[in-house]
Amino acid sequence: MSKIPLAAMDRIIREIGAERVSEDAKEALREILEDEAKELIRRADRISKHAGRTTIVKEDIHLAK
Amino acid sequence: MSKIPLAAMDRIIREIGAERVSEDAKEALREILEDEAKELIRRADRISKHAGRTTIVKEDIHLAK
Repeated sequence: MSKIPLAAMDRIIREIGAERVSEDAKEALREILEDEAKELIRRADRISKHAGRTTIVKEDIHLAK
Repeated sequence: MSKIPLAAMDRIIREIGAERVSEDAKEALREILEDEAKELIRRADRISKHAGRTTIVKEDIHLAK
């Protein structure tokens, strides 16, 4: 049911320069990010409706952060 | 320089059931998640070193959250 590929975690880890990261840690990171994404989208959805719109725009995401 | 594919944002948006999300909003969401991932990995890296390890494990990620 994962939505963000683990390869994306690898790319971010390499960019940061962290040397060794266990597979379990990558999975935990992905899960945290997916939960955060869901919460952000839910809040942004309420914010866009509150503004009388049906489309979530960039500003809704930033306000939801 | 993006590490998380936009398609992952689409999958999460569909799961939440948000009807319409602008492309700009998806990009903003991705950027927030990538920044959050970097910050989490940096903190987890310090936490693992503090514990005398060189490998980041799941518990470091959870502590960094």
